[in-house]
Amino acid sequence: QLTLCTQENGIRRIVLNNPAKRNAMSLKLMESLRENILRDVKELDLRVIVLSANGPAFCAGHDLKELVSIKKRSEHANIFHICSDIMELIQDIPVPVIAEVGAIATAAGCQLVATCDMAVASEKATFCTPGVNIGLFCSTPAVALARAVPRKLALDMLLTGEIISAQQALSNGLVSRVVPHEQLQAEVTRIAEGICEKSRSVIALGKSTFYRQIVKDRNSAYQDASNIMVENMCLHDGPEGIKAFLERRNPTWDHNLD
Amino acid sequence: QLTLCTQENGIRRIVLNNPAKRNAMSLKLMESLRENILRDVKELDLRVIVLSANGPAFCAGHDLKELVSIKKRSEHANIFHICSDIMELIQDIPVPVIAEVGAIATAAGCQLVATCDMAVASEKATFCTPGVNIGLFCSTPAVALARAVPRKLALDMLLTGEIISAQQALSNGLVSRVVPHEQLQAEVTRIAEGICEKSRSVIALGKSTFYRQIVKDRNSAYQDASNIMVENMCLHDGPEGIKAFLERRNPTWDHNLD
Amino acid sequence: QLTLCTQENGIRRIVLNNPAKRNAMSLKLMESLRENILRDVKELDLRVIVLSANGPAFCAGHDLKELVSIKKRSEHANIFHICSDIMELIQDIPVPVIAEVGAIATAAGCQLVATCDMAVASEKATFCTPGVNIGLFCSTPAVALARAVPRKLALDMLLTGEIISAQQALSNGLVSRVVPHEQLQAEVTRIAEGICEKSRSVIALGKSTFYRQIVKDRNSAYQDASNIMVENMCLHDGPEGIKAFLERRNPTWDHNLD
Repeated sequence: QLTLCTQENGIRRIVLNNPAKRNAMSLKLMESLRENILRDVKELDLRVIVLSANGPAFCAGHDLKELVSIKKRSEHANIFHICSDIMELIQDIPVPVIAEVGAIATAAGCQLVATCDMAVASEKATFCTPGVNIGLFCSTPAVALARAVPRKLALDMLLTGEIISAQQALSNGLVSRVVPHEQLQAEVTRIAEGICEKSRSVIALGKSTFYRQIVKDRNSAYQDASNIMVENMCLHDGPEGIKAFLERRNPTWDHNLD
Repeated sequence: QLTLCTQENGIRRIVLNNPAKRNAMSLKLMESLRENILRDVKELDLRVIVLSANGPAFCAGHDLKELVSIKKRSEHANIFHICSDIMELIQDIPVPVIAEVGAIATAAGCQLVATCDMAVASEKATFCTPGVNIGLFCSTPAVALARAVPRKLALDMLLTGEIISAQQALSNGLVSRVVPHEQLQAEVTRIAEGICEKSRSVIALGKSTFYRQIVKDRNSAYQDASNIMVENMCLHDGPEGIKAFLERRNPTWDHNLD
Repeated sequence: QLTLCTQENGIRRIVLNNPAKRNAMSLKLMESLRENILRDVKELDLRVIVLSANGPAFCAGHDLKELVSIKKRSEHANIFHICSDIMELIQDIPVPVIAEVGAIATAAGCQLVATCDMAVASEKATFCTPGVNIGLFCSTPAVALARAVPRKLALDMLLTGEIISAQQALSNGLVSRVVPHEQLQAEVTRIAEGICEKSRSVIALGKSTFYRQIVKDRNSAYQDASNIMVENMCLHDGPEGIKAFLERRNPTWDHNLD
């Protein structure tokens, strides 16, 4: 299996699992990944997805042997279409996706990290977009990268292909947390468990609103987000959560968007 | 009085003043704040606004008791409308607004900091958007937050509700300066006094252009900003400032946009 | 000569060369700079441009004596038009432009740094946009600055006119590398030589796509960039680069976009 998938207590763990190929995003791996992300994604007992990897690399980007073995334009288009589709759905599904990065993330692998809602790295993690070195500029990874880090760093990485450290990734916004390598999984689990304690519907509403408003002008964004705050107060879990807080008791979520 | 307001030598100080409620943004506090921001805002003797707070918190966000006591959708809409209105006018008025943050800024309080033109924090200041914990996702605070800091950090704060330090706020762009707590007011006063030495009209022109151009594509932004540079040279204070600099004398501003 | 220009082994070095006037961007200097950027810019033997400066300042911004000596609105418009034109073409030409910054970059000089595709600074470099002090708000520099660094820092610099250090510039994304002063030229040369080892056409495709997609919404950006990935695989240098990598040999680029 190119990606492993387990689910327990609301946390789905998807593990890239082709260490011998450094988890290269072959068509088959991408299809497996997409399937595992999308399966029963609307079920209430799924609350958060953690994306991690087995082996010496988090993900080495596209499968180069596959790419050059293909001759037809439409088949190349298909590969990049599926890849972009995965990146979009990670942000479009109603539950948060956390990247757990303990090793190097390259090209489309770096894009995957830049795309996840949250990314936690170990001190051993590194990041690069070295397509320029092999004649295939990381133009699709740049879509995610340039929306995550300052432009100068994005272009530096894209034009030089050089590697940045976990600390550089942190100070530039590519990841939001860096921990010692041996604490990586524990930290991500702690965050994921925290998300499971919250209302699924409230998170779903907030996540979709975030990505929708961020590309609008300020006034339109506020109009949208203000309406959503009112919607949020109309959910069961809005007033319930506030009342529980004021009454110093645990909330009883129904996790329902209706 | 829920907000205090004094003005001297061009500097208006507005102080959130409901320490017992951690300066929660109740309807009444928001109305008081808006009134104090807008009063005589076009008068030439107002040059800069400093927004600070009394008590153990800078601002704890919306007044939760008020929020749950309201049953009508239109009244919730009204609260979020006034809040967004304040955020917009802070950026739309002709004088700079500086947040002086010496304690925790939560939810809409964090939004207020993210919204001000400048923000100076003491080492004791902290920031969070924990609405997700109580069933009310910080969707409106996210409008300001996501325009101030990298997306990964914004989503981390929004999805976990966890607190970041003043140093993290600084290295991610939420504030532009951090000073020892006992120097906070002195540093903000120094900056405010510096702004009072400059031309009011030049700052008004520059501030409005900044927010207008930032959402445009690059070429449109340059067309707009280039026109404004010419306008600026047509103001009295443009050539006067440059000549004074070249003649090594103090400029005589008229602060006038006509 | 207000700007010096040499070219060797694919690397064009343009040096701002009016130290006595701190490389102020007079009309004549701007025209010289533009000419040296644009000359034979489509020739295959030009692969990267390095922009550096002689003297105690990298660039002090517009020539203030020239600005106040002009009385006609159309002539002011002309100056700002040419300046914006240079900023746009730096990003629009097919080869990367690297700023090598060893001293202070002020106003339009800071804009120049913020505009280049990459910027490397020495520890002695500093940056500011102090137009506000002399009555001419840095509205055009703000176009580049606000797209390079977080808004709060941009507005702090624009409203206070104060100087930031190379380290602050690095941690906020205005430059992507800071090195000891004596290593500045060597580091930039190393990067430029690295770019010369890559395919010119692949870089041209990637650079233009980067700036085009960054202002689009996410899905449109992916559609654009995915198409470009397919185009890239149709270039000679795409499959050639990948095959060379897989065969552990050096690629033979043709550098051709056809």
